[in-house]
Amino acid sequence: MKLYNYFRSSASWRVRIALALKGLDYDYAPIHLVKNEQSSGSFAERQPSHLVPALELDDGQWLSQSMAILEYLDETHPEPPLLPAGALARAQVRALAQDIGCDIHPINNLRVLRYLKNELGQEQAAVDRWYRHWVATGLAIVEKRLAATAGQFCFGDTPGLADCVLVPQIYNAQRFECPLDDYPTVMRINAACLALAAFANTHPSACPDAA
Amino acid sequence: MKLYNYFRSSASWRVRIALALKGLDYDYAPIHLVKNEQSSGSFAERQPSHLVPALELDDGQWLSQSMAILEYLDETHPEPPLLPAGALARAQVRALAQDIGCDIHPINNLRVLRYLKNELGQEQAAVDRWYRHWVATGLAIVEKRLAATAGQFCFGDTPGLADCVLVPQIYNAQRFECPLDDYPTVMRINAACLALAAFANTHPSACPDAA
Repeated sequence: MKLYNYFRSSASWRVRIALALKGLDYDYAPIHLVKNEQSSGSFAERQPSHLVPALELDDGQWLSQSMAILEYLDETHPEPPLLPAGALARAQVRALAQDIGCDIHPINNLRVLRYLKNELGQEQAAVDRWYRHWVATGLAIVEKRLAATAGQFCFGDTPGLADCVLVPQIYNAQRFECPLDDYPTVMRINAACLALAAFANTHPSACPDAA
Repeated sequence: MKLYNYFRSSASWRVRIALALKGLDYDYAPIHLVKNEQSSGSFAERQPSHLVPALELDDGQWLSQSMAILEYLDETHPEPPLLPAGALARAQVRALAQDIGCDIHPINNLRVLRYLKNELGQEQAAVDRWYRHWVATGLAIVEKRLAATAGQFCFGDTPGLADCVLVPQIYNAQRFECPLDDYPTVMRINAACLALAAFANTHPSACPDAA
């Protein structure tokens, strides 16, 4: 498999974590977002969204959308599972992942921040406030939901799909200097995850394309 | 089951369609977003995101995030399936749903449009341009992806998870007068879906709380 991704893209890191949790090998294909490598060449042709990550399978098939890729990896390589047993538990984990993957991340993605700056003429300070507003709104929700599900990790004592999505979001939040003191459960889980090799070894700073 | 929702919320409509496709009965609990009913009372206490929809199960358990709810319904009531057989096909359908559910809808949700107006002082015309920009960007991607998957519906000739997400997005796009001529496959599928009772009978205009 070949993972088209960018070291600092949080959606990319989700997939790197899942691949590592499952012990799967892959080729690392860097796509430099700030240099706009996603918008031209063969990557842009195969990936109409121009968004990373994309996972190319050994037969040439091409998968996009990080949370769909996580589900694919879980279906094709079930051990260790990213989702718990039981429909209710699975729904809770998916909802946690989507609280971040739908309701925080896309609103704060690079292309949206660029629109705020370029089309709406917003200053960097206003863009930073925007970023922090959606992180604060979203993490307050996640913190409350975790009261019902968390053990050592987002759901019980096994790292899974929600952790794959949470940890990269916290990394981004720290880059944007978001205050995080109000989310003690989130931050405890983040630390527990980063103590695991699957998270630490795939950290943006450990990537081949890290600046 | 009890569905907390709002007639015009596209995420709510996704769940109404899925419940109808599966032939499941439920109580309709309206939450009027424009009157901010989502932000107070018992709904706000149970739903920390203050977002609709939420599905209350018969045992009092509470599910959130529409795409997680669709997966839950598919796991607990497998017939007719919302997802095809085979991990690759399932990944393609989930990616299509997420192209809309992650990369169009949350950026254009009511709370974001309100932030543009209230915190960033944008005029309605700029808000409308924002809305149309993300619809155009997203539907162009969906139109390209559908070339690989579409039959009568988003994936083959059976309506499923991606159709549940697509049709409400088109309804919203039409409300905001987004140009849609560039997406012939999308619009053909939208029409095919709306010809089905599960879509037509759950249309916002058919809801008990329709204004």
